[in-house]
Amino acid sequence: MVYITGVIVSEFRYCKLTREWTLFAPERLKRPKDLDNKREKYLGEIIHEKCPFDMGKEEFTPNEITRVSQDGKWKCRVVPNLYNALSVDIPSVSNKDSYFEKHSGFGAHEVVIETPNHDKQIWEYDYNDLINYFTILQERAINLKKDDRLEYLSIFKNQGEAAGASMSHSHSQIMALPFLPKKISDEIEYKKSYFEKHQRALLDDLVYEEINHEKNIIAQNSEFVLYCPYASQFAFEAKIVSKKRLSSLIEFNKSDLSALCDITKEYFSKFYTTLGEVSFNMIINNAPYKEYNYKTRDYYRFNIEIKPRIFKQAGFEQGSNMNINVILPETATKIYKEDR
Amino acid sequence: MVYITGVIVSEFRYCKLTREWTLFAPERLKRPKDLDNKREKYLGEIIHEKCPFDMGKEEFTPNEITRVSQDGKWKCRVVPNLYNALSVDIPSVSNKDSYFEKHSGFGAHEVVIETPNHDKQIWEYDYNDLINYFTILQERAINLKKDDRLEYLSIFKNQGEAAGASMSHSHSQIMALPFLPKKISDEIEYKKSYFEKHQRALLDDLVYEEINHEKNIIAQNSEFVLYCPYASQFAFEAKIVSKKRLSSLIEFNKSDLSALCDITKEYFSKFYTTLGEVSFNMIINNAPYKEYNYKTRDYYRFNIEIKPRIFKQAGFEQGSNMNINVILPETATKIYKEDR
Repeated sequence: MVYITGVIVSEFRYCKLTREWTLFAPERLKRPKDLDNKREKYLGEIIHEKCPFDMGKEEFTPNEITRVSQDGKWKCRVVPNLYNALSVDIPSVSNKDSYFEKHSGFGAHEVVIETPNHDKQIWEYDYNDLINYFTILQERAINLKKDDRLEYLSIFKNQGEAAGASMSHSHSQIMALPFLPKKISDEIEYKKSYFEKHQRALLDDLVYEEINHEKNIIAQNSEFVLYCPYASQFAFEAKIVSKKRLSSLIEFNKSDLSALCDITKEYFSKFYTTLGEVSFNMIINNAPYKEYNYKTRDYYRFNIEIKPRIFKQAGFEQGSNMNINVILPETATKIYKEDR
Repeated sequence: MVYITGVIVSEFRYCKLTREWTLFAPERLKRPKDLDNKREKYLGEIIHEKCPFDMGKEEFTPNEITRVSQDGKWKCRVVPNLYNALSVDIPSVSNKDSYFEKHSGFGAHEVVIETPNHDKQIWEYDYNDLINYFTILQERAINLKKDDRLEYLSIFKNQGEAAGASMSHSHSQIMALPFLPKKISDEIEYKKSYFEKHQRALLDDLVYEEINHEKNIIAQNSEFVLYCPYASQFAFEAKIVSKKRLSSLIEFNKSDLSALCDITKEYFSKFYTTLGEVSFNMIINNAPYKEYNYKTRDYYRFNIEIKPRIFKQAGFEQGSNMNINVILPETATKIYKEDR
């Protein structure tokens, strides 16, 4: 393990069997959990009485990295994760100890506090809230890219307890790792080879077919399409994909960001009407930093996945990596589109 | 979708992006859920008032496939899953509809009712309970293998709501599919190539290193080793691996089964003392039927994985397939081994 002044930080360990890495982060055990004990006081390591993400409680978060302000007040801010699984302040080093391989817990781990309003959830965001949110994500994506030790950028939002959130105040997380997870390197390799063969991006072809198929399309605008994928892993899973040659938030201009806000707002309005306050994971997929260049736009397409966590993944999924889904995407699409 | 006399059965759909299949099984929406509503009456599709897995309620399960009896009473029985995701009574057919690929929901889906005692959980099983359990699994593994349309055998146990169980009466599930999931075909390919290179099974080498490393070993007997793997994905994850050249339950003789019962009993005794009634998935990994022959023993090793579901998998895991684990395996091992 890597220690910083006596504190265990974290480490990556490589599994030779699955060829996947696991990130060990004992510090995260200390996180407060307001979702587990809504009606009780905070337990354990609590150093304050109220939510540290609220306006006026800025002293309880680590030093701010950036913010979006309006009329002198912050609307959206990014801070290092207090219970960080990764740290940029340690060396990025790989070790091999006899048969075992590990890597120091080098990387970035940040929290995006999406709104100062403790009770406002993403389905209540107006256009300005979303512009602030995506603009700050873009800024962080651009800045983290400057550290050329970082190869993989992960942006995600866990909403609700079943999706792994520990705080109810609306937030997202940004992690940047010093290597690509196997899933991602396999994906990139496959997308590159698909491009070499067809001279088209794989996701462009899939979107083309989904649009032809019609039944899974929830909505479109000039720049994005929103649909429930044909082989969705989760009930009511939805995806937003760029129809332009955009591979990362880094490349978005103002009009791209604006179109993204429109379709995101439309989706979450339907999400809330259809499912209510259901837990979900949102994954904002950008081309990884590794080997990123102008050619990346050939084979990689920016996309957002929303995976509601209504039904549990169980032993079959763990063993086979194959999901059982009880709702067909065409059924989910129909329900999303119903007027209510 | 495949219909049998008007009932939607299920279908596999292939995702060209992840190259994984998803199994769509709308019938499973109708499952009773005693775990979600412990103190309420059964909801929905309930056709009886008590647990259908109890002794005396056999009429509420589909026709029994096999049982282990003692003194004229059943101790363990296997029935088709009433809310089956797969059916052996439909043709195994693949379809390609323009860009989309699917496969009929052909396959086996069975429930192993492990005990007639509604309140007895696996950590309370005596040696006989475990012998009955593994013997009946072995019998099913041998019998399903006779259908040469089945390529993949999945045996798993979901315990507790957080692990996806819908019934509290102790049970396991058996699924057999007409093809290998991508995760499994990748794994087999990798294990075969490892054997070609080293003339040793990959899991033998990993077990050898874990035994040398010592810190992660919970227990051993002459035939099996029980340990917390170096790169465990879940907190307190444990693994039981055959030290002999056994690749599947099919190959176990009486003494192998006996040694497996011993180590399983020892593990679950430690599990209960350490973690209490925590949810977990248990995955019993056998060499897949596809291409199974005497050479399979060269590269594949029978093993059981137990994955406690204490912490949730969230957006980072969904996006990267990399897990964050807050407990190091050497810490978990130490806690498992503590006298209490």
